[in-house]
Amino acid sequence: MGNFVNIGLIGYGFMGRAHSNAYLQACKFFPHTIEPRLRVVCGRDQKKLDDFAENWGWEETENDWHRVIERPDIDIIDICVPNDMHKEIAVAAAEAGKMIICEKPLAKDATEARIMLEAVRENGKPNMVCFNYRRVPAVALAKRIIDEGRLGRIFHYRAKYLQDWTINSNLPMGGSQWRLDAQAAGSGVTGDLLSHSIDLALWLVGRIQRLTAMKKTFVNNRPLERDPSVLSRVEIDDACAFLAGFENGAMGTFESTRFARGRKNQNAFELNGEFGSIAFDFEDMNFLEYYDYRADSSYRGFTKIQVWDGDKHPYMGHWWVPGCGLGYEHTFIHAMSDFLYGLEQDRKLCPDFEDAYQTQLVCDAVLASAASGEWSNLQVLVPSN
Amino acid sequence: MGNFVNIGLIGYGFMGRAHSNAYLQACKFFPHTIEPRLRVVCGRDQKKLDDFAENWGWEETENDWHRVIERPDIDIIDICVPNDMHKEIAVAAAEAGKMIICEKPLAKDATEARIMLEAVRENGKPNMVCFNYRRVPAVALAKRIIDEGRLGRIFHYRAKYLQDWTINSNLPMGGSQWRLDAQAAGSGVTGDLLSHSIDLALWLVGRIQRLTAMKKTFVNNRPLERDPSVLSRVEIDDACAFLAGFENGAMGTFESTRFARGRKNQNAFELNGEFGSIAFDFEDMNFLEYYDYRADSSYRGFTKIQVWDGDKHPYMGHWWVPGCGLGYEHTFIHAMSDFLYGLEQDRKLCPDFEDAYQTQLVCDAVLASAASGEWSNLQVLVPSN
Amino acid sequence: MGNFVNIGLIGYGFMGRAHSNAYLQACKFFPHTIEPRLRVVCGRDQKKLDDFAENWGWEETENDWHRVIERPDIDIIDICVPNDMHKEIAVAAAEAGKMIICEKPLAKDATEARIMLEAVRENGKPNMVCFNYRRVPAVALAKRIIDEGRLGRIFHYRAKYLQDWTINSNLPMGGSQWRLDAQAAGSGVTGDLLSHSIDLALWLVGRIQRLTAMKKTFVNNRPLERDPSVLSRVEIDDACAFLAGFENGAMGTFESTRFARGRKNQNAFELNGEFGSIAFDFEDMNFLEYYDYRADSSYRGFTKIQVWDGDKHPYMGHWWVPGCGLGYEHTFIHAMSDFLYGLEQDRKLCPDFEDAYQTQLVCDAVLASAASGEWSNLQVLVPSN
Amino acid sequence: MGNFVNIGLIGYGFMGRAHSNAYLQACKFFPHTIEPRLRVVCGRDQKKLDDFAENWGWEETENDWHRVIERPDIDIIDICVPNDMHKEIAVAAAEAGKMIICEKPLAKDATEARIMLEAVRENGKPNMVCFNYRRVPAVALAKRIIDEGRLGRIFHYRAKYLQDWTINSNLPMGGSQWRLDAQAAGSGVTGDLLSHSIDLALWLVGRIQRLTAMKKTFVNNRPLERDPSVLSRVEIDDACAFLAGFENGAMGTFESTRFARGRKNQNAFELNGEFGSIAFDFEDMNFLEYYDYRADSSYRGFTKIQVWDGDKHPYMGHWWVPGCGLGYEHTFIHAMSDFLYGLEQDRKLCPDFEDAYQTQLVCDAVLASAASGEWSNLQVLVPSN
Repeated sequence: MGNFVNIGLIGYGFMGRAHSNAYLQACKFFPHTIEPRLRVVCGRDQKKLDDFAENWGWEETENDWHRVIERPDIDIIDICVPNDMHKEIAVAAAEAGKMIICEKPLAKDATEARIMLEAVRENGKPNMVCFNYRRVPAVALAKRIIDEGRLGRIFHYRAKYLQDWTINSNLPMGGSQWRLDAQAAGSGVTGDLLSHSIDLALWLVGRIQRLTAMKKTFVNNRPLERDPSVLSRVEIDDACAFLAGFENGAMGTFESTRFARGRKNQNAFELNGEFGSIAFDFEDMNFLEYYDYRADSSYRGFTKIQVWDGDKHPYMGHWWVPGCGLGYEHTFIHAMSDFLYGLEQDRKLCPDFEDAYQTQLVCDAVLASAASGEWSNLQVLVPSN
Repeated sequence: MGNFVNIGLIGYGFMGRAHSNAYLQACKFFPHTIEPRLRVVCGRDQKKLDDFAENWGWEETENDWHRVIERPDIDIIDICVPNDMHKEIAVAAAEAGKMIICEKPLAKDATEARIMLEAVRENGKPNMVCFNYRRVPAVALAKRIIDEGRLGRIFHYRAKYLQDWTINSNLPMGGSQWRLDAQAAGSGVTGDLLSHSIDLALWLVGRIQRLTAMKKTFVNNRPLERDPSVLSRVEIDDACAFLAGFENGAMGTFESTRFARGRKNQNAFELNGEFGSIAFDFEDMNFLEYYDYRADSSYRGFTKIQVWDGDKHPYMGHWWVPGCGLGYEHTFIHAMSDFLYGLEQDRKLCPDFEDAYQTQLVCDAVLASAASGEWSNLQVLVPSN
Repeated sequence: MGNFVNIGLIGYGFMGRAHSNAYLQACKFFPHTIEPRLRVVCGRDQKKLDDFAENWGWEETENDWHRVIERPDIDIIDICVPNDMHKEIAVAAAEAGKMIICEKPLAKDATEARIMLEAVRENGKPNMVCFNYRRVPAVALAKRIIDEGRLGRIFHYRAKYLQDWTINSNLPMGGSQWRLDAQAAGSGVTGDLLSHSIDLALWLVGRIQRLTAMKKTFVNNRPLERDPSVLSRVEIDDACAFLAGFENGAMGTFESTRFARGRKNQNAFELNGEFGSIAFDFEDMNFLEYYDYRADSSYRGFTKIQVWDGDKHPYMGHWWVPGCGLGYEHTFIHAMSDFLYGLEQDRKLCPDFEDAYQTQLVCDAVLASAASGEWSNLQVLVPSN
Repeated sequence: MGNFVNIGLIGYGFMGRAHSNAYLQACKFFPHTIEPRLRVVCGRDQKKLDDFAENWGWEETENDWHRVIERPDIDIIDICVPNDMHKEIAVAAAEAGKMIICEKPLAKDATEARIMLEAVRENGKPNMVCFNYRRVPAVALAKRIIDEGRLGRIFHYRAKYLQDWTINSNLPMGGSQWRLDAQAAGSGVTGDLLSHSIDLALWLVGRIQRLTAMKKTFVNNRPLERDPSVLSRVEIDDACAFLAGFENGAMGTFESTRFARGRKNQNAFELNGEFGSIAFDFEDMNFLEYYDYRADSSYRGFTKIQVWDGDKHPYMGHWWVPGCGLGYEHTFIHAMSDFLYGLEQDRKLCPDFEDAYQTQLVCDAVLASAASGEWSNLQVLVPSN
């Protein structure tokens, strides 16, 4: 492998762009002994692919992802295609001995995810799933606060992830709008948004034991993108919520929707513990609110920590000076940088397929409960190996 | 009845104080042709009762609530005692032909509430249950926004009511801490906090059809207030959450707890509709956030309406000038003033026992679902008359 | 004097109403051995006066303020009339041996204020000027933080007081709009708004040494209220700002205006010191923001203290429970309660005429600097006695 | 010039890094027909320079800036060195026929700035000064709101720029801390921070006519970085404030300091106009608050515009999707992109040396007023050509 890892990127859409930028910026802001080399990008529309490759500096293009995987010079396969293609690509990549970076959710469902997990276990190579919100400095700081025992026993985890971009019933589905197509996406907000909240919950609070869920589809028919004259049945969940019991006794409430007017990307959570609380909202991503019950009782309150101090806050030593906030794309830069550090230091990279499989199990349990009207018990779903 | 209504107040605790102040201030700030006369207050500790009566100007005191109800000169019985006494007093008052003002929740459960409702139906006199948060000017403005159709079809109602005062496991129960005693309170946060969120939901969104719930008791044993050496089993819910489907198709999420460090009285809700959203938090009670999707798309966002303009906002014409906020006690002043207006204009007063009974039905359904692990279907619980 | 002090209130406008309410509520929420008795209210319009007296329980009415002062049964003269009448009434009251409560600003200018100050010095009786914002619990907490040395050396005091109610050039002046009439008010925002910011500065930071000021009149002519067909020259300052050096080396910036669209009563200040900062905004009056530099450096930030905890925060032990905020009128209730405590304990009451005279000196210096374009040096203006 | 412009960067510190990143990212996110080529970077420490060049892709290094300017293949000289070197480099670059990009402030004082301005006038080539905050999308949106007449007549501009990094009196000066050395920086916060507030004021409101100023140095002696045993006299202003009259009649208040505990980079301003107000704070850089007086009077308030919608907001069409905020470095990316567009379209680039000279005149007037205690009249300082 030497000083470089050669990347093969499958997909050049929104996420392909975020990942390409992240590789380049990770090298510039975070010192690495192993550098990513943008070797080949794969897509079907050659014209768009050429433009993309030229813009981001991908050395070559390819139209068939199998050929990318076959190349012996490729070390990492980065999967940025719709969810329904994750499994086949990941399994092939694993079998070809590649490291894998995969966009979230890992798969359409836990059955697929289980197959993928087994493939990477077999392969034994580093892998990562891009639950990028773990890499927000404020969220990483939240993790540190919890790990330092500053919250004590956790009573509550309260998550919401709200957007509003699918309210218009004329918005078509399929094609570039594959997130509205259950065949391509597996599910609606559950896989797309709730999975982020679940990933953070499992990381920050611990394992979920049982849950009861509810979902809604507010727009039942949409035109197809490829032929807007055809109205097709919408099979995804437009909104989904669930109540959960964690193994450690904490209570969780989760909600996500794409029907919350004015909320563009409100990925927010709050934890309440014995000794304190923390609250985060991605729409104010440079801040973390922290209530310390053990502070002087006259002067207690939620402290708005500005998470941009290089000496004290995760990731920030590599950026600018206090008072200079970060944005959305930095979460991916941090993810790619963490991946490279993991390689350098031969450390397990998180969240990996194992973690993402656990998240997928919860997603499946959510959808099952919403369908059946019964509580899902997670223990029976956890694999024994 | 003439120009006065004579009040008999049962109970002189926290709520008795809030109501006493409200009667006096309602007369001073809101012009009424019918004035409340603080005729008699009833309680058991004569010394405290005398102090209370003197401070607030109650003309007489009484130690047995039956004697208050028996008095022909009393027009209104105001019930400010623990929940387990509501039913007996209310039924007796109704049978004696009195008007009734009752603190929330209406009863310990819907069975009691049903009996109370039937008694006041029989009696035919005005009655009111003090779900005081309807009387926050910002909440009344929210109701107006909805009634004007400014949100369009409602997709989401999202309520939380968070406190933190019972985390300490040494906090005793029983006696003055009757809210922790299931015998006296009927339930924990469900009756005390969730009932407010439910009352607002029924008022702002409409009827709830079905729900699935979860509850937690974090502290399982507490000392008794009357004998702290005795540890007693806690039977109330410390936290409770539920997911709901409304008749109009909206999805509801509700959560309340007394274990959210740093949240003192965070009674908050958000509605998301087709054309806009509104958000309220009682900890910032003088503001309402409103997102108007139909505004100029470049300049849209959540508008922080300062609800203190006398010309434009509910109740505010009777207070000071713009920029001068109100506080907690004003919600009771408005409630009592509304009650008096209702009398003057012979209007149905809301929320009355009928409304509070509906809220109680939902509370019972919540507790039933939390106990059984099954969805509760509200329709079968609604009485047919 | 016994257990009562008899009040004679001169004026029954906005402030007369706030004071009347304050006397009544102070007795109900704060235990006093000396109780105010609403003996007589004085005004010219007998019909309105009668209504006012009846509403608030003033026992008698009077049309000529001299007769109120002549009454031997009156202990306290409370002055709630336009600024141009303060001096004559206060001097007469002092000479008649009365205690005096006077609305702010103390006078139209420092020359008047000096005469008033000398009269009360001669008289030797308790007196108070209603700079009510000192009685906001959050502001009183700010004072405590400073007095405890938690900010260390003060570098900056930054005050603004913004309103927007006089932008409309058709708003008439004179009569009930006496605040726009320089003859009645003495000045515009300087006496009305800046005086509050100055009072707080002198209390929280200390004496001002020198300053340079600027003022603006944005609407130069207005119709007279008594005859809207007459346009009259506006002589007041619509906006005024100044930069100041404090004796302790701190730097001050002050600004007030009635031409800040959307700002209704934004009385805000921030202090920056060696070890911390505090920030307050009356439009969020139940909160104080506090930055403690000596806290753990990873978790520092501005803490939003919710100043509503009875055990820990000024005044709040007399009100409700944590999470229950106060409003505008409470600042007056606290002022009157403090005055009564002062009487009971024979303590100097602050701010009194002495304090208000110092504030008036700064106001005069501000107006002088704005007129001359030169720095005003406060030392030469301070009286030698 | 062809499709490339060759850049010669002088200086590789904090700003050299921000500019290098900006050139690279501008190409990736904003389509340009003219691309910047990172040809040569100049600095004295060859080791650091090599690392810098390798990290950012500068093709060559140079130790003497004269040689960079002499090179015929260099089109643009980018000046990122301490203020005291701006003039000599800029004049030489202008005389050599180069385009110039210069960090702010333009010079140590207006005399130098005037010489620089004359040099670029002579040269006739495009030039730009990096007042980067104009390129915050929310600030650009503020400009649009004003230009659309949405605020009407402007009454107030209120700016503050607060930091806290120099409170520690042991912080050395000189060397890498040249901002604390008056010889290198020209002034303290006036050139460093106030210049930003002034640049925005001139852009958003218009020309300043007159002003009165005050400055403070809180730490009078500091150790030298090159020899911490030597205490040297501090000659810069640690804090500076001024009051201003604009030509259009608006009133301005400006304050900046490095002694505001807890404020890291609070570059904030508010404008109040006849029909509305806007408020901005760089610590919440993705939002703009806008009060529209002409909106429905019941539902007015400050609207928190989330300035991240590609269809509607400046620059955002090139980034991600709504809900995905930007950070500090994006202001430089936008600046460089704007510069390139200007070249492509042969448009005047703003702010250029002409604009920055006006800002420098105001800075000089501020310092002169603070020193003399007299108002500065800007008209006499404006050059006649």
